[in-house]
Amino acid sequence: LNIAVLPGDGIGPEIMQQSVKVLEAVAERFQHEFRFESSPVGAAGIEETGDPLPEATLELCKKSDAVLFGAIGDPKYDNHPEAKIRPEQGLLRLRKELGLFANIRPIKAYKSLLEHSPLRPERIEAADMVIYRELTSGIYYGERSLSEDEKSATDTCTYTVEEIERIAHLAFKSAQKRRKKVTLVDKANVLETSRLWRKTVTRLAKDYPDVDLDFLFVDNAAMQLILNPRQFDLILTENMFGDILSDEASIIGGSIGLLASASVGTTYSLFEPIHGSYPQAAGKGIANPVASILSAAMLLEHFNLTKEAQAVIDAVELSIKLQISTSDIGGGHTTKSVGDFLESLVL
Amino acid sequence: LNIAVLPGDGIGPEIMQQSVKVLEAVAERFQHEFRFESSPVGAAGIEETGDPLPEATLELCKKSDAVLFGAIGDPKYDNHPEAKIRPEQGLLRLRKELGLFANIRPIKAYKSLLEHSPLRPERIEAADMVIYRELTSGIYYGERSLSEDEKSATDTCTYTVEEIERIAHLAFKSAQKRRKKVTLVDKANVLETSRLWRKTVTRLAKDYPDVDLDFLFVDNAAMQLILNPRQFDLILTENMFGDILSDEASIIGGSIGLLASASVGTTYSLFEPIHGSYPQAAGKGIANPVASILSAAMLLEHFNLTKEAQAVIDAVELSIKLQISTSDIGGGHTTKSVGDFLESLVL
Ligand SMILES: CC(C)[C@H](C(=O)O)[C@@H](O)C(=O)O
Ligand SMILES: CC(C)[C@H](C(=O)O)[C@@H](O)C(=O)O
Repeated sequence: LNIAVLPGDGIGPEIMQQSVKVLEAVAERFQHEFRFESSPVGAAGIEETGDPLPEATLELCKKSDAVLFGAIGDPKYDNHPEAKIRPEQGLLRLRKELGLFANIRPIKAYKSLLEHSPLRPERIEAADMVIYRELTSGIYYGERSLSEDEKSATDTCTYTVEEIERIAHLAFKSAQKRRKKVTLVDKANVLETSRLWRKTVTRLAKDYPDVDLDFLFVDNAAMQLILNPRQFDLILTENMFGDILSDEASIIGGSIGLLASASVGTTYSLFEPIHGSYPQAAGKGIANPVASILSAAMLLEHFNLTKEAQAVIDAVELSIKLQISTSDIGGGHTTKSVGDFLESLVL
Repeated sequence: LNIAVLPGDGIGPEIMQQSVKVLEAVAERFQHEFRFESSPVGAAGIEETGDPLPEATLELCKKSDAVLFGAIGDPKYDNHPEAKIRPEQGLLRLRKELGLFANIRPIKAYKSLLEHSPLRPERIEAADMVIYRELTSGIYYGERSLSEDEKSATDTCTYTVEEIERIAHLAFKSAQKRRKKVTLVDKANVLETSRLWRKTVTRLAKDYPDVDLDFLFVDNAAMQLILNPRQFDLILTENMFGDILSDEASIIGGSIGLLASASVGTTYSLFEPIHGSYPQAAGKGIANPVASILSAAMLLEHFNLTKEAQAVIDAVELSIKLQISTSDIGGGHTTKSVGDFLESLVL
């Protein structure tokens, strides 16, 4: 496997080191050959080349079998609304260029972390869901404008039936292998795009008679996620709602530092933690590498390296149980020492 | 005071009865005269007149001093994406026609309900925040379209500087009377409208040097609300983000059945619970009337009837402590008996 490694900004590089180390251990133990090649993206891309998605980085991704992505974003740009070039553009363009239309975010409550959650253990015990977030359309990619006199701004959210269908098919197929329930989250009582989602997904559901389909308005979903997370099996939703709900749902898992994601399309695939660049922690060795390492496990799974993926997951679960973990989940270990421990378990 | 009463749909009429009863008790005790006049809205409006906001209802609101609003929505319409007339249009048009640009949603954790929350008591104890949600613009009111061939749909989100300024001024002024901290929630790393919010609010903040302003991206905010609700004093945000975050934040209060809101503009004001029409509960006498009754208290406060408002709030707090409450917060009482008890305390 040729793997493009895009560490990005903030804690990206440190966590990425651990993931590569663990993948190298997998390669050694299971006798594979993984070739890694790195390239800058985000603020790092801007600094090196002036472009948050340098041409060479995009090319590398396109010729690789998969992309491992770290994190993106730098506060330097956040409070300058007038900046024309921003790190996030790198990630957004990359998702679009690679056609990564489905972002898959599994969320479950780890037994040994129940005590650590802000939620009462009995509410989240055995919660196990996956969020399918549409990733290359909606308000993220609609036309935007700022009026000449800077007195008015507009963002546009557009969805086509085809964009809805392709991710909905993936979602229904995934639900068939799970508990066979899809919850479409939308705001169909207000938005035209939501009504198109509801109509399209309702029609498609007929092809999957073994899967139950239900609907929740996004405001209610944001509440239900915390009130009763166990009601969810697979949540299907559009880009912006998926962004909000999956960060919120990270609480169920105990820490956003544990949550992995896979972004897939017809040709390419990219694996990234759902957390951001966490600039306040950069360089301190306190970032949790598990989200990135579990993203690497999703990569293995994507290529049907099931045993290999399981070895990584088992190692992670053991490390959590033994509290060989970072402070966000109550451990006292550094980013590197968690990575070292996981490497040694996998080897 | 002339008060327009719009019970609306689902549990709307039953909770509204209790609010009117409590306001009548306030009038008797404090020697005021409150005149109530009712009119249909939402699905009830559609059934009576074919219009979710009948002309007579709008006129009544405009000639009244304030509007008490119940709830709106009927599942009959939700799963018919093609319906041209929907209950929600009544509420959305009413907000626009009355110019209710600021929706104010206070959220606090009741001490006696801490044990009832899905969140660990120590996380939410003493949480006390207010959400200022922009209510008459953004994607709720932008142009929408469905293409001729029904293969593509669009919603538009527009904000003007003026729309941002008027609610931001209210928010800063309110923060000055609170803990002097405003958190602007946006998605400025992606949306043009968010960047306009950030720029405008940053500029305005200079007029309020005693108030701290900070920023959170909406995905992070959805997580922080649950992780550490005590960090928030006043959250200022646009329409859709406010809808999602305030429903989510209801969890901190123990039940969405407790949360009141005031919607204000330059001329008119409307008071409504943040919960919806909860059709599954309609007619069963299990709906919590407190959100609506506390909305009535916000009405009193709005007209500087401070003692009167406090009498209602005190009654509610006592009822919660004594568990003279509905089942959503662990009591075994009906909607009406909670209303009766509150009436008797206020009298
Ligand atoms: C960095 C940002 C643009 C991105 C998004 O909103 O998609 C991030 O929050 C995510 O969820 O991957
Ligand atoms: C009923 C619906 C249109 C409404 C909204 O989204 O504004 C409701 O959820 C609310 O928060 O008042």
